[in-house]
Amino acid sequence: MAKSPPKKTRKTILVLNGPNLNLLGMREPEKYGATSLAEIEAALRQLAKAHDVELIAFQSNSESRLIDRIQAARGRVDVLIINAGAYTHTSIAIADAIAAVSIPTIEVHLSNIYRREPFRHHSYIAPVAVGQISGFGAQSYELAFHAALRILGMRK
Amino acid sequence: MAKSPPKKTRKTILVLNGPNLNLLGMREPEKYGATSLAEIEAALRQLAKAHDVELIAFQSNSESRLIDRIQAARGRVDVLIINAGAYTHTSIAIADAIAAVSIPTIEVHLSNIYRREPFRHHSYIAPVAVGQISGFGAQSYELAFHAALRILGMRK
Amino acid sequence: MAKSPPKKTRKTILVLNGPNLNLLGMREPEKYGATSLAEIEAALRQLAKAHDVELIAFQSNSESRLIDRIQAARGRVDVLIINAGAYTHTSIAIADAIAAVSIPTIEVHLSNIYRREPFRHHSYIAPVAVGQISGFGAQSYELAFHAALRILGMRK
Amino acid sequence: MAKSPPKKTRKTILVLNGPNLNLLGMREPEKYGATSLAEIEAALRQLAKAHDVELIAFQSNSESRLIDRIQAARGRVDVLIINAGAYTHTSIAIADAIAAVSIPTIEVHLSNIYRREPFRHHSYIAPVAVGQISGFGAQSYELAFHAALRILGMRK
Amino acid sequence: MAKSPPKKTRKTILVLNGPNLNLLGMREPEKYGATSLAEIEAALRQLAKAHDVELIAFQSNSESRLIDRIQAARGRVDVLIINAGAYTHTSIAIADAIAAVSIPTIEVHLSNIYRREPFRHHSYIAPVAVGQISGFGAQSYELAFHAALRILGMRK
Amino acid sequence: MAKSPPKKTRKTILVLNGPNLNLLGMREPEKYGATSLAEIEAALRQLAKAHDVELIAFQSNSESRLIDRIQAARGRVDVLIINAGAYTHTSIAIADAIAAVSIPTIEVHLSNIYRREPFRHHSYIAPVAVGQISGFGAQSYELAFHAALRILGMRK
Amino acid sequence: MAKSPPKKTRKTILVLNGPNLNLLGMREPEKYGATSLAEIEAALRQLAKAHDVELIAFQSNSESRLIDRIQAARGRVDVLIINAGAYTHTSIAIADAIAAVSIPTIEVHLSNIYRREPFRHHSYIAPVAVGQISGFGAQSYELAFHAALRILGMRK
Amino acid sequence: MAKSPPKKTRKTILVLNGPNLNLLGMREPEKYGATSLAEIEAALRQLAKAHDVELIAFQSNSESRLIDRIQAARGRVDVLIINAGAYTHTSIAIADAIAAVSIPTIEVHLSNIYRREPFRHHSYIAPVAVGQISGFGAQSYELAFHAALRILGMRK
Amino acid sequence: MAKSPPKKTRKTILVLNGPNLNLLGMREPEKYGATSLAEIEAALRQLAKAHDVELIAFQSNSESRLIDRIQAARGRVDVLIINAGAYTHTSIAIADAIAAVSIPTIEVHLSNIYRREPFRHHSYIAPVAVGQISGFGAQSYELAFHAALRILGMRK
Amino acid sequence: MAKSPPKKTRKTILVLNGPNLNLLGMREPEKYGATSLAEIEAALRQLAKAHDVELIAFQSNSESRLIDRIQAARGRVDVLIINAGAYTHTSIAIADAIAAVSIPTIEVHLSNIYRREPFRHHSYIAPVAVGQISGFGAQSYELAFHAALRILGMRK
Amino acid sequence: MAKSPPKKTRKTILVLNGPNLNLLGMREPEKYGATSLAEIEAALRQLAKAHDVELIAFQSNSESRLIDRIQAARGRVDVLIINAGAYTHTSIAIADAIAAVSIPTIEVHLSNIYRREPFRHHSYIAPVAVGQISGFGAQSYELAFHAALRILGMRK
Amino acid sequence: MAKSPPKKTRKTILVLNGPNLNLLGMREPEKYGATSLAEIEAALRQLAKAHDVELIAFQSNSESRLIDRIQAARGRVDVLIINAGAYTHTSIAIADAIAAVSIPTIEVHLSNIYRREPFRHHSYIAPVAVGQISGFGAQSYELAFHAALRILGMRK
Repeated sequence: MAKSPPKKTRKTILVLNGPNLNLLGMREPEKYGATSLAEIEAALRQLAKAHDVELIAFQSNSESRLIDRIQAARGRVDVLIINAGAYTHTSIAIADAIAAVSIPTIEVHLSNIYRREPFRHHSYIAPVAVGQISGFGAQSYELAFHAALRILGMRK
Repeated sequence: MAKSPPKKTRKTILVLNGPNLNLLGMREPEKYGATSLAEIEAALRQLAKAHDVELIAFQSNSESRLIDRIQAARGRVDVLIINAGAYTHTSIAIADAIAAVSIPTIEVHLSNIYRREPFRHHSYIAPVAVGQISGFGAQSYELAFHAALRILGMRK
Repeated sequence: MAKSPPKKTRKTILVLNGPNLNLLGMREPEKYGATSLAEIEAALRQLAKAHDVELIAFQSNSESRLIDRIQAARGRVDVLIINAGAYTHTSIAIADAIAAVSIPTIEVHLSNIYRREPFRHHSYIAPVAVGQISGFGAQSYELAFHAALRILGMRK
Repeated sequence: MAKSPPKKTRKTILVLNGPNLNLLGMREPEKYGATSLAEIEAALRQLAKAHDVELIAFQSNSESRLIDRIQAARGRVDVLIINAGAYTHTSIAIADAIAAVSIPTIEVHLSNIYRREPFRHHSYIAPVAVGQISGFGAQSYELAFHAALRILGMRK
Repeated sequence: MAKSPPKKTRKTILVLNGPNLNLLGMREPEKYGATSLAEIEAALRQLAKAHDVELIAFQSNSESRLIDRIQAARGRVDVLIINAGAYTHTSIAIADAIAAVSIPTIEVHLSNIYRREPFRHHSYIAPVAVGQISGFGAQSYELAFHAALRILGMRK
Repeated sequence: MAKSPPKKTRKTILVLNGPNLNLLGMREPEKYGATSLAEIEAALRQLAKAHDVELIAFQSNSESRLIDRIQAARGRVDVLIINAGAYTHTSIAIADAIAAVSIPTIEVHLSNIYRREPFRHHSYIAPVAVGQISGFGAQSYELAFHAALRILGMRK
Repeated sequence: MAKSPPKKTRKTILVLNGPNLNLLGMREPEKYGATSLAEIEAALRQLAKAHDVELIAFQSNSESRLIDRIQAARGRVDVLIINAGAYTHTSIAIADAIAAVSIPTIEVHLSNIYRREPFRHHSYIAPVAVGQISGFGAQSYELAFHAALRILGMRK
Repeated sequence: MAKSPPKKTRKTILVLNGPNLNLLGMREPEKYGATSLAEIEAALRQLAKAHDVELIAFQSNSESRLIDRIQAARGRVDVLIINAGAYTHTSIAIADAIAAVSIPTIEVHLSNIYRREPFRHHSYIAPVAVGQISGFGAQSYELAFHAALRILGMRK
Repeated sequence: MAKSPPKKTRKTILVLNGPNLNLLGMREPEKYGATSLAEIEAALRQLAKAHDVELIAFQSNSESRLIDRIQAARGRVDVLIINAGAYTHTSIAIADAIAAVSIPTIEVHLSNIYRREPFRHHSYIAPVAVGQISGFGAQSYELAFHAALRILGMRK
Repeated sequence: MAKSPPKKTRKTILVLNGPNLNLLGMREPEKYGATSLAEIEAALRQLAKAHDVELIAFQSNSESRLIDRIQAARGRVDVLIINAGAYTHTSIAIADAIAAVSIPTIEVHLSNIYRREPFRHHSYIAPVAVGQISGFGAQSYELAFHAALRILGMRK
Repeated sequence: MAKSPPKKTRKTILVLNGPNLNLLGMREPEKYGATSLAEIEAALRQLAKAHDVELIAFQSNSESRLIDRIQAARGRVDVLIINAGAYTHTSIAIADAIAAVSIPTIEVHLSNIYRREPFRHHSYIAPVAVGQISGFGAQSYELAFHAALRILGMRK
Repeated sequence: MAKSPPKKTRKTILVLNGPNLNLLGMREPEKYGATSLAEIEAALRQLAKAHDVELIAFQSNSESRLIDRIQAARGRVDVLIINAGAYTHTSIAIADAIAAVSIPTIEVHLSNIYRREPFRHHSYIAPVAVGQISGFGAQSYELAFHAALRILGMRK
């Protein structure tokens, strides 16, 4: 790997959300819950502040902008939390980007994808992730944040 | 669903076209016909005018711009007519967007996709659409327009 | 092909319906609508009259009587509109009959077959049809009638 | 459901572990980590104490003893955390027991099962669980404990 | 086969029930009915008494105890009625035990397994059974009892 | 559903047999038994008389005549017992007819279809039936008759 | 098998043709040849006369009438030559009828079915036939006639 | 195609037999008949003489020698009759050789391959052959000889 | 791996037998031979004595007791010979136990499992075993014993 | 096809690279080599200069920008060299664009995709390309350049 | 079967080795061991001498020469030990030869084929062999020799 | 690996061609081009001379002779260029030979195998090759030669 930028002291967690997750709270709330993405990100920022961690949140409906964001994270982000939405099941390119930047990654889903259509049971991201957390609604993200702290060695 | 904008009185139909459909009339005319997309859209606009319906047409080669456009249609568009082109067979994200905005949707294809390669026989959009019209060339869109009028209750 | 009968001047459309479609309006109306087959055929006859087209309607629960009717249409019918019901998914023989008589054929379905059981997703008729219209209830037939007019060159 | 025993005031979490998990710390530590099951259970008990929750831990190599334990939990346990080990992939009977007792269930795995043999990618338990947490080693259990608290309404 | 014990004069029917069937009447009554296993066994015992047949009933959540019970039946039981529950779909070992003891066997299911998940459509027991009776709730057992009488030659 | 005829007081059971079952007793007796269809129907009529139930029996080698008979049974028949023979495995149209008339249906087979060729393991009728009885030869019908009595509420 | 009629001295060959074969010579002659079915049957009758064999020819588009004809042949026909057309690939019932009447059967096809669509590669009739002859156009029948003579022991 | 040798006046038929067919008559006669390959070839030579045709017979257990022989036949042989034995199911190379030399080819099998193991149901040779004759034992070859005469235009 | 017990000097071979193998000699002797399991174990003990090896034999119908026994063998057994019977094809848990204890394992089968039903062709144990010996009846065990000696370095 | 721009005299080769290929040299160098994309493009430009060919290079992580670029190449580019990266396996839309513009296309891969995960073995681009070159690292591009020269008729 | 040669008194074992096994000891020794085929054959010859058995060893890379050798063994060889190498997975013709000569056959593999690529898990030879021994390196052959002695009745 | 012969100074490239490639130029020139194999080999020899490399060319229709030739190349050949023709898709033995001799191998195809029948899409050789070049007709070989030079370090 080419030269990485000078080591920063504060840890950074990048939270990526994929297509249609900007509709959270508005879209089929009985399936995805009533919490909006803004609310989820706010809660995570509060958690980050409490643990003195930098938290960057980014959502896009675009596969390529998600890839760009992952690539840009190389050497700058310590843990990636990603809910790639529908791209979970179709994007080899996002999975390749994650593998390429070598950032420990946690896969998150709001709903239990194993209770839904069969084409949602397969994840291209799972094999390049450390682990998955799914089915706990907005709280899946908070659990992922705590898992990230552990990966960062900030919790036993 | 969050508050939707004040109800408009004139009905709106959004016609979306996906990748490579901008080449219509130029690309393999023996397969897709000699009519250009501009001509198809012009014919639809004329029909719309005749029925006092607003018609918006949008084409993009980009999966995410199509998703953005579908999301933006929530509360503003009454029927969606979509020819997602090759994304028909690969994009769960577009299908999710359609399901999320709860706009009645008509799937359109120029050619009879069941006479082509097997990978074109499956549509992710079909299960979230009201119905499909395929195989009638440029006229598939006009038939879809008439089906839309019926969904809008503007024809028996 | 053997000698065909002397050319008639008025165009003829044959509307074929397969098994259990005689129960329309009575059978699971929430799935198939409340309109009876007689009402659908009456509406089509009225449309035909308005466009000076002959319309023949025939329903049978019998695969062979449907085949017989298709064979008899050779040289006498200009467009075939068919809703083969359950035989759509199981009858190669009906598809062969359509291919043999070389009459342009439009496949029609009341319901969106892609929202139902997987065994209803495959159609033997699709590859021998010009196109399909499905999911618009009784109006699927009217749209097919308009598509037929276009095939007959009676509408632009 | 038949009469359930009088409502208890303190919440109870049952932690079930399936076959070979008694070997944790001894068995292929590079794959499953060096922490023993006793250590994991101790950590969970400490957490439970801190949150004033009763925690019961049970491990068995026997499919039927796990089923018996789940059945016995009906009306007595508020959340079930289960790592069914290899039975995850083969036991419909354990999944049926979970469905039968209607206790909210969290599926846990030490390793990321999607990085392993294909026969470990399918879980009979997933469709009857609230959610899954996998890939975080011994910490998967702690994250599950926190998810359980949320299900119990003991954390926002 | 080794020497079998001296021939008894009264016929014996063994009724085996597999995992989770002990919860009958309590578990999802809308799916499995409100009758408990005890009530089913009582009804069968009354029928047995009326026909002067010995009836032995045994339920276990354990695959091996069911196998042990089948093995022990060799030479002592004349007809086996078995509802193996979830083991129907996963246990080759139970099917092997039935084949090994050469006792005519009737497979019983409360619910119509063909209306449920695909993994419940396959039975390892079916190919080693005389026949199956499924879908009639608690009455499936009584019908099986009558089928057993016929196998025993006690009814025309 | 349209108006049904005035309620009759005596219950009616329709027994339908499909293709080649008219050969019973003559065709491969080692597989299907030596009892003829006439003998089976006679035995059922005697049973019906004893329970004051009307019994109608009909056999046809024709898929469409079976469909016609099922359709004609709407509002006139209380339980349908059907052995669709080879059409069990190929006729979606017969299954659709059963679903359309909403008459409780019992699927019957003489032989244990799970001991035969794989293409006989799948039944289109099973998912629209109350239950199945198979493998007991001519007695499968009598057991089905008793199951029908229970459905009619004529036996506990 | 029940009593068969008194033994006749002259041998009888039944030639059955299935759906759409009545169109031979008219339907896609480049695929099926220009010879009509009547011409094929005439040629076979001449051959039969020359060998002092009775030849009966029957064509139907109806699966059930083909089954009826096969059943009626029991004890009266010595060899069956059948081109079941599209039913070759879909009718278990015709194959069952052939197996039931125990008449040696030769499967015939005009075209080489292995050069066509994959769904034409499978034959339900093949496993109950003595042999197959396919791909030689109208001459497939004559070759089958000669094979029949050999089965009848009329040629070495 | 390069220059072919000067046209010969007498027609030539090449009969190729593949692996293990040299054992005919010795190997499992109940499956393959008691006639030896030498006897089959002698019968064919006699037929050839009677029709003034040259007949060349060649058997090999070697895939490459069969390919060599097919290649050598280019421009010298008018019809190829081939029983490729087990190579039927595994050799794309033999099928390629047949396609390359453009000699009309008849596929022959002694036994009905559709009554045997599933791996014998597929033939790589079928799609490059004019037609197949299978199941008539040694007489399959004679029927193929007659089919060859027709291809050669030596019989109507 | 945790501390293992002090090294013993005499080598130990554990012979495990799974479900229904206790019926050996009694169950379908034409398939499994007439030798009882006791006789097989006696023969192995004699062999062991002759080679100064300790031999422990254990049979159970219980998946979990087999797992318990394998776990208990860690550090105490030098080679494991296992015939897991039907669990061979269904138990990932037993295979996991073998992998966990790191004892060289030989898979044994009495019958040639590749001549039986397809579901017996797959073994979960094979990939964690050193090798397999199958098809030689009771002698499969003796061959396995000799293979074990070689693994123990007691034979060249 | 519509009017194309006036014919230019110097030939143009377009080199397209898809997602994550901008990371070349930095990403997993043991898999993709240490050469950066800039270095590859520089080498190709030098080659182009030497052969008096115009070379345009373009990389994007965006499926739609790649499609846009291919469409813009119509009538302006003579040969397309494309390494579509992960989109090779998922993008029908890119393949459709290539087919639509009718530019001879060479598919390139750095690594041997047949040595990697099964989902990388399938290419949507292969059937619309002239040929493929894969597995030679950065040199795959140079070989493709030479193949392009041949397509352009600039080398024998 | 034709006349076999006069019975010889000394038993003969034929050891056949297929493609690339002549490279043993040189080819990937970490997978196949360091012993050469010559050394294996020498060890087997010594064993044979000790047991007064004739041992013939033959290796070929040619499928047809292996078939020829098996055919030539008919009536001359008493047991066949075969390691068909890669042909194990592709040659129906070798399996047919083994079936044709009716010599008891033992399948041998050096490595545990179930730990390798999936295409090596299937053996065409297994269903025609008495049994298999795999995974014990060069010693697999010696174990097979001992199994052969048992088949020859030379050891209990 | 055993002793290899003394190191030669001039590099050697072996060009192997499989079945039916000796017909090149004669066989279906529209698919494979008009260049003969002799012409291809001559062109390669000229190239070799120009680069001072020894080039050996060998073609065979025999799988085993190709294997023999590959084995003989061990220690004597520096790069292998192979077009295995139809054996590409069926021969595990050739792939094993390539793997065994550890010579860097380039897979070549004249036509684009991904535009042909599905059974030509899979290559057993691909996973043991360095890379593939396909679709460029006779020039595929020249490109492979240049790739070989790079492997030999004779070109940058």
